[in-house]
Amino acid sequence: MVFMQTLREVWQRHDSLLCVGLDPDPARFPDSLRGQPDGIFRFCTAIVNATAGLVCAFKPQFAHFAAARAEDSLERLIAYIHEHHPGIPVILDAKRGDIGSTAMFYAAEAFDRYGADAVTLNPYLGRDSVQPFLDRRDKGVILLCRTSNPGAGDLQDLDVGGQPLYQYLAQRVAQQWNEYGNCMLVVGATYPEELARVRQQVGEMPLLVPGIGTQGGDIEAVLQAGLDAGRNGLIISTSRAVLYAGSGEDFAEAAHLAADRLRGEINRYR
Amino acid sequence: MVFMQTLREVWQRHDSLLCVGLDPDPARFPDSLRGQPDGIFRFCTAIVNATAGLVCAFKPQFAHFAAARAEDSLERLIAYIHEHHPGIPVILDAKRGDIGSTAMFYAAEAFDRYGADAVTLNPYLGRDSVQPFLDRRDKGVILLCRTSNPGAGDLQDLDVGGQPLYQYLAQRVAQQWNEYGNCMLVVGATYPEELARVRQQVGEMPLLVPGIGTQGGDIEAVLQAGLDAGRNGLIISTSRAVLYAGSGEDFAEAAHLAADRLRGEINRYR
Repeated sequence: MVFMQTLREVWQRHDSLLCVGLDPDPARFPDSLRGQPDGIFRFCTAIVNATAGLVCAFKPQFAHFAAARAEDSLERLIAYIHEHHPGIPVILDAKRGDIGSTAMFYAAEAFDRYGADAVTLNPYLGRDSVQPFLDRRDKGVILLCRTSNPGAGDLQDLDVGGQPLYQYLAQRVAQQWNEYGNCMLVVGATYPEELARVRQQVGEMPLLVPGIGTQGGDIEAVLQAGLDAGRNGLIISTSRAVLYAGSGEDFAEAAHLAADRLRGEINRYR
Repeated sequence: MVFMQTLREVWQRHDSLLCVGLDPDPARFPDSLRGQPDGIFRFCTAIVNATAGLVCAFKPQFAHFAAARAEDSLERLIAYIHEHHPGIPVILDAKRGDIGSTAMFYAAEAFDRYGADAVTLNPYLGRDSVQPFLDRRDKGVILLCRTSNPGAGDLQDLDVGGQPLYQYLAQRVAQQWNEYGNCMLVVGATYPEELARVRQQVGEMPLLVPGIGTQGGDIEAVLQAGLDAGRNGLIISTSRAVLYAGSGEDFAEAAHLAADRLRGEINRYR
């Protein structure tokens, strides 16, 4: 699977820019899964099966598996998506960032061990820390740029030579780091003005946009700010608003309805 | 264990500022351990037992365990250090960075699942991303500041209001993020001038300094630049120069000799 090509195909085939983030929190599972053996895997695959036709990507969040000692579930979940829903890319949201030989071990973890099609990375350590991921040309390399949290601006908004750091980074990635065309950037839905500035600087580069749903990002504003010239270019990610749309045994149906509604809302402004 | 207090005690008790990084690479193990069941755990515990009296900390590197599906070994290794070498803090080098509820899951992973005494974090997402770690007042929170890699300056050296970003961050952490006194910063041994500037800005805050040994950092320059007023204040970390000092069955003895030599060299300039 070549990540960027697969993404462009699934945008069309599913008519969807929606990504469902897989952030399993056992405390919020329905009674029949809470505390059950393999509850995390069963919860996530139920969500995947209920929403696969509505999404352009799935995005498992590493910490939610790691805190529960569920790396094995994460491996099997990604393999399950590839087997049962081929053509839907899987983004491992791990926000890795390390240097030299260690970065190579992280690339091996994401792409070889877990079989992810793309991974999120933190750019603070500079380009050489990202190079082992860039060199995997068939994989997506998704760099944090302007995140969705309240404190995002602490460093990301600092003025560097007349523009904020996140814009400088966006430019750098677009002009220098993206020589194999496999880069993307993370820009939070909660900051549509910043999203518009990034879009201006990166051309057709796809952007991963978390923060709609529970975090409160405005879908219309995100679409106006972030679409590329072909009315694509976005992976709009939500987790809790879909995963926990229902708290009872109908959680998968509730997730389907929530994802369908979000996909429709996105397409209304597209 | 309160991390900062334990660190100050072990600096004295072992007369050492040396930290051994545990970055197991099975391809470099001696023949008797390569490809063996539990080889990673057996290699690391042999290194730990051979060097424990010479160090102020151990620093397992997460990627080396994760790429090998060896999270279980990492759990047991940290428990082993606590049981057999109490009073030596364990720094989980995972360079985490994420927001809100996800940051809480990462804090649970590092401190509750793995039982680490401190963890390395990436500051790019801002203070709120670090708060769940800061709130664990007995634990160490070690923020990347000026890393040891060649591309470290890509973002970290950018001028923000008349000073480089890494200095701005050092100031911020010292003045605002460190309200519970549990913060440290990472500054690479390969950049002693930058280390001196950070020391000027953070007073007595301990600094984690990787990059001596294989990466080529100059020990005398590091000591001159980084010591605090009490001739302490540094955790000087090396991995490969100790772990792979020998390639044969005497690897643990070779590691002991290499660690002893490095500790002595550090103390010569202290």
